Amino acid sequence: MRNIKISIQYDGTKYDGWQKQGNTKNTISQKFDDLLNKMTNENIEIIGSGRTDAGVHAYKQIANFYTNSNMSLFQMKKYINNYLPKDIVVINIEEADDRFHSRLNAKSKKYLYRICNQEEQKVFERNYVYHYPKNLNIEKMKKATKYLIGEHDFASFSTTKKTKKSTIRTIYSIDIFYENDEIRLLYHGNGFLYNMVRILTGTLIQIGEGTMNMDDLKEIMESKERGKAGFTAPGQGLFLVDVLYE
Amino acid sequence: MRNIKISIQYDGTKYDGWQKQGNTKNTISQKFDDLLNKMTNENIEIIGSGRTDAGVHAYKQIANFYTNSNMSLFQMKKYINNYLPKDIVVINIEEADDRFHSRLNAKSKKYLYRICNQEEQKVFERNYVYHYPKNLNIEKMKKATKYLIGEHDFASFSTTKKTKKSTIRTIYSIDIFYENDEIRLLYHGNGFLYNMVRILTGTLIQIGEGTMNMDDLKEIMESKERGKAGFTAPGQGLFLVDVLYE
Repeated sequence: MRNIKISIQYDGTKYDGWQKQGNTKNTISQKFDDLLNKMTNENIEIIGSGRTDAGVHAYKQIANFYTNSNMSLFQMKKYINNYLPKDIVVINIEEADDRFHSRLNAKSKKYLYRICNQEEQKVFERNYVYHYPKNLNIEKMKKATKYLIGEHDFASFSTTKKTKKSTIRTIYSIDIFYENDEIRLLYHGNGFLYNMVRILTGTLIQIGEGTMNMDDLKEIMESKERGKAGFTAPGQGLFLVDVLYE
Repeated sequence: MRNIKISIQYDGTKYDGWQKQGNTKNTISQKFDDLLNKMTNENIEIIGSGRTDAGVHAYKQIANFYTNSNMSLFQMKKYINNYLPKDIVVINIEEADDRFHSRLNAKSKKYLYRICNQEEQKVFERNYVYHYPKNLNIEKMKKATKYLIGEHDFASFSTTKKTKKSTIRTIYSIDIFYENDEIRLLYHGNGFLYNMVRILTGTLIQIGEGTMNMDDLKEIMESKERGKAGFTAPGQGLFLVDVLYE
């Protein structure tokens, strides 16, 4: 069996996320499964590096799938991009080692959150930024990140249902900067819980506008209660930027 | 009567252009007429600096309208942007001189054409660039512009129906450059005929790919026949960038 690794870019606006539990067919992974099965006459289930929520985008999502097909990589990429809807594109395709697993082998991930902090929402990028016109003190937001960076129990920053799974993660960096007339937050960590980047962003926004205090962060973290943290920033401003392996 | 001048940004993807003859209601100017009439209880017809075709966008379109309303400019802008669809935004509003007419007083216009000249179409900007993956020699395209710049009869580069109106226009500059992984063509002229920028672009693309010869340009221009020039590049890559007045 060949193990094929692909890099995917997608506009998540119209989809119910990368993959959903339950009955929905309107997911990005489902588009791939349908298309790969048609291409190979096999029963392929694509493996993504992780889920992205409804409306969340990817500059670079990594996935892999197994196939007995003898199509060339060039033919495969051409076939896939020809049949994919225009809001999903395979940007790279390669043969991977037998043991490569896009989710289990992922060492860290980068996410970007984009905030349009102007009076009017952007016209051409309206589905790719969160419009938040209130004044935000980005110096305060930057200072607050020091309480978040490192290994912590992020239970307060997730809406995961109670399971026995660990809620400890390590954030390596959170960079906050102006670019393209936006405030951008770039997160790098060894993994992120369900909704974690969006809740961290909502919390940092509340610190930036002054409705939450920087010193509250320690209390939020220790409480392990979702209710203590800030709001969940909407999915449309969030991008999976990169998935890093060994 | 007050004369109100506004600057408008729009994503033309879903519209039949700025303004259409005939019965269509799905135009950008119609959205404004409906909204301004609702706002003022008057019968306002907005005046645009010129038409843009179906699917064509504007970074900056200029328009004006007359009203007896005593709303402040701030209130007006807030009201309009609140009720406009999200793909149209008023970016500036001001009081203009009684005699200001956005179309008749326009001295020159700038248009930008964006070409995605890569193998795969862009995901996030797919409605704002024309995907043309064939190899284009941009040095040839640049050289060809010297035959186009200046005062010429551009009848060959327009699909205007035969009228007695002059087809003579002056192009001040055509800049061709790489930006944002695209080939961009920036046109500045005292006015442009119907479809002129799109036909000029199609012709320059054909010169870039070698299916049309640079020396053909003189012959095309002299023929005054639309059939001699290149194809009409699609509206989705075209932006009205600026309208200049005295």
